[in-house]
Amino acid sequence: MSGEFVLDARLAADSVPVIELPLCSVRLMDDARFAWLLLVPRRPGLSEIHDLDAIGQERLWREIRLASGALRSVAPCDKLNLGALGNIVRQLHVHVVARREGDAAWPGPVWGSGAAEPYAAPARERLVDALHGQLAVAVG
Amino acid sequence: MSGEFVLDARLAADSVPVIELPLCSVRLMDDARFAWLLLVPRRPGLSEIHDLDAIGQERLWREIRLASGALRSVAPCDKLNLGALGNIVRQLHVHVVARREGDAAWPGPVWGSGAAEPYAAPARERLVDALHGQLAVAVG
Repeated sequence: MSGEFVLDARLAADSVPVIELPLCSVRLMDDARFAWLLLVPRRPGLSEIHDLDAIGQERLWREIRLASGALRSVAPCDKLNLGALGNIVRQLHVHVVARREGDAAWPGPVWGSGAAEPYAAPARERLVDALHGQLAVAVG
Repeated sequence: MSGEFVLDARLAADSVPVIELPLCSVRLMDDARFAWLLLVPRRPGLSEIHDLDAIGQERLWREIRLASGALRSVAPCDKLNLGALGNIVRQLHVHVVARREGDAAWPGPVWGSGAAEPYAAPARERLVDALHGQLAVAVG
């Protein structure tokens, strides 16, 4: 596929922007049940990680590492969950989720688990600001 | 944690060995519903990807890439699913799953989806042999 990158409409509707990293748009899922980041490489036509070239894949892993570190620092958790599924939304996106024992889906996966519960706006803004701050420092 | 690496008993019971890569044991989940690989880094005391040092993480991503390629070549699929959850089994392990539209969990995740259906032994051996062959070539 050619053309410009356009964020998938469902991903856009379900999440809010945090920061633009060199490869990925980092977004917070608007679901107060879980501290949950999405990383979406801003290249058109990707659906699998192996659709990225080698340098792109290295960059993706680096950004996953950065996002995981930022998420852990603002949302203490018992386990990180990482996932790249794309069975429903085919545009390549990677999930990084801070899981707590006893959370709404524990110990199952968050994907397909009940309905999102949107944040109250002030809580969402505080979390986005904290994540943005961590990631802005991390990427320098 | 120190000491030797010992494969988690539940992972061992649910899967069969395919090949030893430089970092990971690659295993096939004994579930004929999905072509499903596990990668388990053979280092003691890991539960998160970030518990690996930088070189270990690079090696893990490389081995995920190799395993994904081998899996796709022997089990054509509509979508690869990648996951590192560990909410139940804390020993670090990464799932690479070849998904087909309409498979037993589609479009949901495989984790927590019903009961495994073990392979008939000949089918399992053929699949393990094919995966071993692909991965043995890939690692050289």
